[in-house]
Amino acid sequence: MISTHPDVQGNTADALLKFIEEAYACAQTCTSCADACLAEDMVADLRQCIRLNLDCADICAATGAMASRRTGSNEAVLAAAIKACAEACNRCAEECEKHAGKHEHCRICADCCRRCAKACNDAMPQVQ
Amino acid sequence: MISTHPDVQGNTADALLKFIEEAYACAQTCTSCADACLAEDMVADLRQCIRLNLDCADICAATGAMASRRTGSNEAVLAAAIKACAEACNRCAEECEKHAGKHEHCRICADCCRRCAKACNDAMPQVQ
Amino acid sequence: MISTHPDVQGNTADALLKFIEEAYACAQTCTSCADACLAEDMVADLRQCIRLNLDCADICAATGAMASRRTGSNEAVLAAAIKACAEACNRCAEECEKHAGKHEHCRICADCCRRCAKACNDAMPQVQ
Amino acid sequence: MISTHPDVQGNTADALLKFIEEAYACAQTCTSCADACLAEDMVADLRQCIRLNLDCADICAATGAMASRRTGSNEAVLAAAIKACAEACNRCAEECEKHAGKHEHCRICADCCRRCAKACNDAMPQVQ
Repeated sequence: MISTHPDVQGNTADALLKFIEEAYACAQTCTSCADACLAEDMVADLRQCIRLNLDCADICAATGAMASRRTGSNEAVLAAAIKACAEACNRCAEECEKHAGKHEHCRICADCCRRCAKACNDAMPQVQ
Repeated sequence: MISTHPDVQGNTADALLKFIEEAYACAQTCTSCADACLAEDMVADLRQCIRLNLDCADICAATGAMASRRTGSNEAVLAAAIKACAEACNRCAEECEKHAGKHEHCRICADCCRRCAKACNDAMPQVQ
Repeated sequence: MISTHPDVQGNTADALLKFIEEAYACAQTCTSCADACLAEDMVADLRQCIRLNLDCADICAATGAMASRRTGSNEAVLAAAIKACAEACNRCAEECEKHAGKHEHCRICADCCRRCAKACNDAMPQVQ
Repeated sequence: MISTHPDVQGNTADALLKFIEEAYACAQTCTSCADACLAEDMVADLRQCIRLNLDCADICAATGAMASRRTGSNEAVLAAAIKACAEACNRCAEECEKHAGKHEHCRICADCCRRCAKACNDAMPQVQ
């Protein structure tokens, strides 16, 4: 899709495209994980996980949209947002990993967050 | 991911899962198409397209998140949101199709919106 | 702000402006109520409330943004979104009212949702 | 609303509450300014402004929601998001100020972004 943008001529950074894909996937997965945690019997033990899931979903959705824009330029803002996104993904992954043995949704979510954090790091050099 | 939810026992509606996937994809594609239209020389002729793209991105993102939740129940609200989402996708597709001959991003976006509108219609019986 | 839009000439519908204000307020209040419910000792009894809060926050934010746009026209989509928004607000208010005696955040959230639902109904004739 | 949260005992940081209010207001105002710019005859000269408006709206909405959550803790993520939000608001204000003489919506939006950037800076010590 983004290669059809008039300001992009076949040389869009693959790492940024990969990040956009991971960010939208992570927004969805974290929304699902928060909701699955809420339905668990042990919901009281999953409060911190739910909170980190919801924060991660919010920043992933916002940063994925911002990274999708190629008109004009806004590098410093995008770099700061990707940095916040990486931090959110790593914190959420750490928490989900604590529950991954008991809850398959936390295991899947942790993997998704780690992939997105890696995609953040890989994309960063291309927006600075 | 959703099959790991404690309230879902292997019988999650495939049509609803397909809708969630299409809704997040359409949110991203419409965000990109709005931005690509903005960068075109003929931006003044693409105002209506940009407006419909942005509205479609907003309702797709919201409805995709709502449809991802399986805890408790909220059928009437989800059905109304999916109806609004289908309307947004069809209207956006119609407008993008007018520009599809000139702009590849509009062609891709129209296809994406049509797929999401179909996914809305297929999912509807499962939430009412 | 909206009265400064080039396509709006002093006759923007007050009811629509009121709706935009209430929708953003309701998105924030429902986000807060979901989080406050999550922190309560009796979180297990508040699952349905949290789910309706999160859905209501999503549709209010999306519809508030859509209603803020005056370029071009997208009446059918906006009307469908406002209808979904009113449904979400009324359902969320009903649930919050059940907990309003015990939890002040639910009492405040119920009032906010009722105001937004009323604003939806008042705005509807102006977008159809 | 937030003072009713079970984990908050009357000592919620006023600066953080002020930030939440400004962030939601700025999300709405930037959404409106992007749309008003799109409707101007000179839309081609306002591309950079529209892009910064849309990015600012996205990060303000996400950070306002994240800052509304008091359950558990996520300080490093919130601090990084507020930093990105301040950057987005200042960049958007700078661009809007260039067009403030011609377009009242850009003047109002610049003021709103400056207030939100100040609220970011004031809130920062309370989340670190």
